[in-house]
Amino acid sequence: MIHVSPDDLDGLTLEEKAALLSGRDFWSTKPVDGLPAVVLTDGPHGVRRQAGDFDALGIFENLPATCFPPAVAVGSSWDPSVAERIGTAIAVEARALGVHVVLGPGVNIKRSPLCGRNFEYYAEDPLLAGVLGAAHVRGQEGGGVGASVKHFAANNQETERMQVSADVDERTLREIYLPAFERVVTEARPATVMCAYNKLNGVYASQHRWLLTDVLRTEWGFGGVVVSDWGAVDDRVAAVAAGLDLQMPGNHGASDRQVVDAVRSGELDESFVDVSAGRVAALTRYVTEPTDGFDAEAHSALARELAAECAVLLKNDGGVLPLAPGDRIAVVGEFARTPRFQGGGSSNVNATSVTSALDALPDDVVFAPGFTLDGSGDAAALREEAVRAASGADVAVVFAGLSDREESEGFDRTTLDLPAVQVELIRAVAAAAARTVVVLSHGGVVSLERWHDDVDAILDGFLLGQAGGAALADLLLGVANPSGHLAETIPLRLEDNPSYLNFPGEQGHVRYGEGVMVGYRHYATAGVPVRYPFGHGLSYTTFTTSDLAVEVTGDDAARVTQTVTNTGERAGKHVVQVYVATEAGPVRRPARELRAFTKVALEPGESQPVTLDLDRRAFAYWDVREGGWVVAAGTYTVQIGADSLDVVAEAAVVLAGDGVVPELTMQSSVVEWFGHPVVGAECVQLFLAGMPADLRDADADEQAGMLQMIGSMPMHRFVTDFGASIPPEELERLAKETRAARG
Amino acid sequence: MIHVSPDDLDGLTLEEKAALLSGRDFWSTKPVDGLPAVVLTDGPHGVRRQAGDFDALGIFENLPATCFPPAVAVGSSWDPSVAERIGTAIAVEARALGVHVVLGPGVNIKRSPLCGRNFEYYAEDPLLAGVLGAAHVRGQEGGGVGASVKHFAANNQETERMQVSADVDERTLREIYLPAFERVVTEARPATVMCAYNKLNGVYASQHRWLLTDVLRTEWGFGGVVVSDWGAVDDRVAAVAAGLDLQMPGNHGASDRQVVDAVRSGELDESFVDVSAGRVAALTRYVTEPTDGFDAEAHSALARELAAECAVLLKNDGGVLPLAPGDRIAVVGEFARTPRFQGGGSSNVNATSVTSALDALPDDVVFAPGFTLDGSGDAAALREEAVRAASGADVAVVFAGLSDREESEGFDRTTLDLPAVQVELIRAVAAAAARTVVVLSHGGVVSLERWHDDVDAILDGFLLGQAGGAALADLLLGVANPSGHLAETIPLRLEDNPSYLNFPGEQGHVRYGEGVMVGYRHYATAGVPVRYPFGHGLSYTTFTTSDLAVEVTGDDAARVTQTVTNTGERAGKHVVQVYVATEAGPVRRPARELRAFTKVALEPGESQPVTLDLDRRAFAYWDVREGGWVVAAGTYTVQIGADSLDVVAEAAVVLAGDGVVPELTMQSSVVEWFGHPVVGAECVQLFLAGMPADLRDADADEQAGMLQMIGSMPMHRFVTDFGASIPPEELERLAKETRAARG
Repeated sequence: MIHVSPDDLDGLTLEEKAALLSGRDFWSTKPVDGLPAVVLTDGPHGVRRQAGDFDALGIFENLPATCFPPAVAVGSSWDPSVAERIGTAIAVEARALGVHVVLGPGVNIKRSPLCGRNFEYYAEDPLLAGVLGAAHVRGQEGGGVGASVKHFAANNQETERMQVSADVDERTLREIYLPAFERVVTEARPATVMCAYNKLNGVYASQHRWLLTDVLRTEWGFGGVVVSDWGAVDDRVAAVAAGLDLQMPGNHGASDRQVVDAVRSGELDESFVDVSAGRVAALTRYVTEPTDGFDAEAHSALARELAAECAVLLKNDGGVLPLAPGDRIAVVGEFARTPRFQGGGSSNVNATSVTSALDALPDDVVFAPGFTLDGSGDAAALREEAVRAASGADVAVVFAGLSDREESEGFDRTTLDLPAVQVELIRAVAAAAARTVVVLSHGGVVSLERWHDDVDAILDGFLLGQAGGAALADLLLGVANPSGHLAETIPLRLEDNPSYLNFPGEQGHVRYGEGVMVGYRHYATAGVPVRYPFGHGLSYTTFTTSDLAVEVTGDDAARVTQTVTNTGERAGKHVVQVYVATEAGPVRRPARELRAFTKVALEPGESQPVTLDLDRRAFAYWDVREGGWVVAAGTYTVQIGADSLDVVAEAAVVLAGDGVVPELTMQSSVVEWFGHPVVGAECVQLFLAGMPADLRDADADEQAGMLQMIGSMPMHRFVTDFGASIPPEELERLAKETRAARG
Repeated sequence: MIHVSPDDLDGLTLEEKAALLSGRDFWSTKPVDGLPAVVLTDGPHGVRRQAGDFDALGIFENLPATCFPPAVAVGSSWDPSVAERIGTAIAVEARALGVHVVLGPGVNIKRSPLCGRNFEYYAEDPLLAGVLGAAHVRGQEGGGVGASVKHFAANNQETERMQVSADVDERTLREIYLPAFERVVTEARPATVMCAYNKLNGVYASQHRWLLTDVLRTEWGFGGVVVSDWGAVDDRVAAVAAGLDLQMPGNHGASDRQVVDAVRSGELDESFVDVSAGRVAALTRYVTEPTDGFDAEAHSALARELAAECAVLLKNDGGVLPLAPGDRIAVVGEFARTPRFQGGGSSNVNATSVTSALDALPDDVVFAPGFTLDGSGDAAALREEAVRAASGADVAVVFAGLSDREESEGFDRTTLDLPAVQVELIRAVAAAAARTVVVLSHGGVVSLERWHDDVDAILDGFLLGQAGGAALADLLLGVANPSGHLAETIPLRLEDNPSYLNFPGEQGHVRYGEGVMVGYRHYATAGVPVRYPFGHGLSYTTFTTSDLAVEVTGDDAARVTQTVTNTGERAGKHVVQVYVATEAGPVRRPARELRAFTKVALEPGESQPVTLDLDRRAFAYWDVREGGWVVAAGTYTVQIGADSLDVVAEAAVVLAGDGVVPELTMQSSVVEWFGHPVVGAECVQLFLAGMPADLRDADADEQAGMLQMIGSMPMHRFVTDFGASIPPEELERLAKETRAARG
């Protein structure tokens, strides 16, 4: 391993330092002054090492690697060990493939179910996304391979992704779109952070100094390399000044020359170049000799084991699943034979092997494809064949989903519907079969509305990686017990999604009009019914929660204890979901927010105590006036949810809060002055003393009414325009007291 | 009448000119150099002339004047003649009371049903608000009294009204929040425009040069005085520079001195002072000798006649209304005896007389108050008394509503519910009575959900002015036929309102996150069910629409013709509502938007042809890139609605549109270049010619996939970073062609 300190760059010329700041080609940095080239290639759920040289972009010919479950599935595992083990395995493969940095994980929030790249992201909740992303990075970096948490930030759609400005207010950024990055950076310290393509509030993320330097480095302490998403740099000099270290891909030195020229002309301080060059040079510590390959079979088995942790059993009426031994089974749907197991675009891994569910299910099942993936063939005939197969079976298992044609990186969907032929197939099979199970494969949420009530069970596999077919078979047969939970709400209607009216934006801007009310935060707060809420997931066994206790542990933190019990007859895993609900503070709070979770394995009849700590951030909101996290004094209800809507136990605690003393100025309003915790009473006295006697004695209702009318008036106008007789020097004295009280 | 031209100010000193820019006291301007003082007092639905001197603010002691139906009722009339006749009558009273400018009308949009001042505004739709506001101004100015259209702009809540920043994107401003002002200013030329208290996108409306000068004067041609809302000026010098002419109230010259000092120090150009002083001086043309009073009885009769045009019959199951002769009637509810007929706050008129419904109904009705307005008394006993009265009657008429305690200028509501005692009363009465009618009095929308299905009829009177009780009796008895239609949606739940998550904002900002999807635009677009839609209103007769035809009349305008028929047995008035629906253009369009309306009186059996013209604005959207109104080429469906959700006839037209040719630059995206209407094909050819042969011949799917991935990339990066071989000079030539094609 190579270690580089900034001092090592002392001998480099400006041109050499600038050369470090952009790639040699599509997938590696420049070897400068004896420093080795660093190879960075796509992830996140496997190594996509482009075959051949790196001089041109190609995403279709890649060296074989294991395709692990993509983030959409890992998100549903609610299990950081799943993410971490994937990261660890990817590191092993990367080292074998000569790759030093694998680009991932993606921790963007699923703002809209239509986003074409949702398969590559974990969740609609930042805690879940951040915990899983940090675990992935821990695994990958622990294996000696750099990670790149992406896409920083607010890259929540594909439409116009290289130009659109995500217009997001600061509280929403701080509470929803940044925390997953913050957690990954501060807890797992990835080698790199990848900036997003889009603009944030009008400025390209690649050139956004507040984002890349003030927040990422100054506040979060990030010391690694900020790398551009491929082609995300618009103005290289502005990007260097903002803190973007490495531009990818390279453009044959064109950007480097701009940087050199800007330094020479005085437009750019050379210290920016020094710092970024030093960081890129330090990245060479990840460069090692390639290892001798990896155990593809063992990794495929791992991919199978982990995939089974991810699938979500949405519905299981009458316990139709697991399939009973001896059941005559009809397997329907092309996806059973030709599995869809990963998303389209830059993350597309050339899988070492692919197992279909049909391969993995018993040989005696009857199979009918039911439809084709490209829409060819006679749909009616295919459907009739499937119906015949289903009619003769005890259970029909329909493998439905979306193909790469319907969803991919690069574009957003416009509907949540499955293709019409599949909907017709499901309904026809359900009408003919004794019992019907639907297995879904897709990257973004699909609507269940046109057939949900027709079927007995739904097993949602999302995209499960190359061994997903085998994992699905394990789950269907009861070899594995489903333990996944939704990381994203399945709505009744697309129109119910809070981003509906503002997605994907128009004329270069997308307004995040729903603010912090993303996903379940919206559905729970506005009382909008959903098909299945965030956090929902069934098991072949059952669990209970008891003995909830919440104890304040000082400094606005709390400890949550409870007992969870497996009350069924199979071993299984239970996800403990801890939400916090409050109306405290001056901002609109979601009805509840996920603040802690853990997954617990329980044998039949087994009970376990579970303790989870909530730190002060679990209770805080971002205060734009204070420019920081504030815990407001008040009551906080800690809720244990079977999902984000079904609270099974709750307990309230009262927190003292941060006791923020607002600073008063002459621009502060009359009610801010009169109601101030430190000087309010004195201010009211001064006001009353200066009032003409007849007004002071006026009807109390009239006084209250008048105050209601002008209570939001800045104090200086109250005095100057409305004749309130409070001596200016007294107001100045009180204002000073408020500043002093803030310490 | 006095005429002043700017030249008349030539002899004035800077101090004298500055003196014209703020009030002498609370309600008049300064007499400077022989110019008379101009008296400006509150409206809008009657003259609120403060008793006594103007040195102090008092809103509780005022000279008697007629209280006409407030705007909430006039909005429901859908009849500009109602608004105009009110304006005319107010002018008569103002001249008698020595008032030269009556402050009104208020044309702000009802963004949230919670806004405490909604009673003073017309509608959730800008066309309806603008047409009615312009009519009011025409009437008032026609009578020689100045109007003041207010509150300019985006003053849509009372919470923190003097400090909050309404954060609104430009398209939303242009399409929703400004058009009513634009119509009033350009069509009716009011003497003054009153700036709002709030900030707009961070800048006080009183200091917002774009708003007060660029839009109001330069674009709309406003030549009158911009007056501040009372106490709305924060920085007087900035306000003068922004175009705010007259600061009210006066502050004993403090502001004037700041203006003088700013001119002397060079901070402010004296020409700003000259222009504003000239405008204020010109306002003295409204100063006349007071007339000898007005005919209070005639105006009260007018108020009664007009009020009957405004009430909305929401429900009338079994034709329970009008009340049949001989019916034994129980009248229940304190509002029948103590009518609520106007809103609280600055607009509160000292009515010349007040008629209650109980006064106006036949003497033989049985009355029980049912509840008290202040919550005193024994609610159960009052309810029982009312139930006894209802039990013995053929019809019980319950007068329910909101008191001044529940809603007023100065604060926003937090619920749509009627007070619980009234809900209980309605349900108890409905359970006991043979038939039940509910009559509502309130300024903001109330929920009907807890009792709607229990009653037979609902007559919504909103606030009907001092003769509202008499008008309600006329409508209940069938002396008048209801013809009002909702100017605001009645939702099923508060949470369904599109502003719900963003009202009233927090920490100094309110995000207009719903954009243009305000009111019915949201409910219709997102398919959210409502109790009664915008535009709904029943009559004692019935109407049909036939023979709809839509003809394009050139320049993207259209003429809509139809025949309306009274198919019932009473004379009545029908509101023709013309909506336009389209998906044309690059922006998200509401499902439909009201684009024309008229009210037609029809005798039983009578048919009338109705012709309405739609100008190009009826089809246009605001294009932020073009900075103007654009009609997109495409199909437009003209829909005749019984209300905003119930389309009874429709016809489509195809419009050529403005044929906007986008200007291309190197920042334009690859798809913008390749798809450009003028140079796109040539650009694609140049690109293909520069491609290596193997790539050119690559799989078409791969090429399409790649373009999907990077289609939004700016052209300069496509060339520099992704190696597209299109000669820069060719791109510059094509870009020039696009500029030329724009003409």
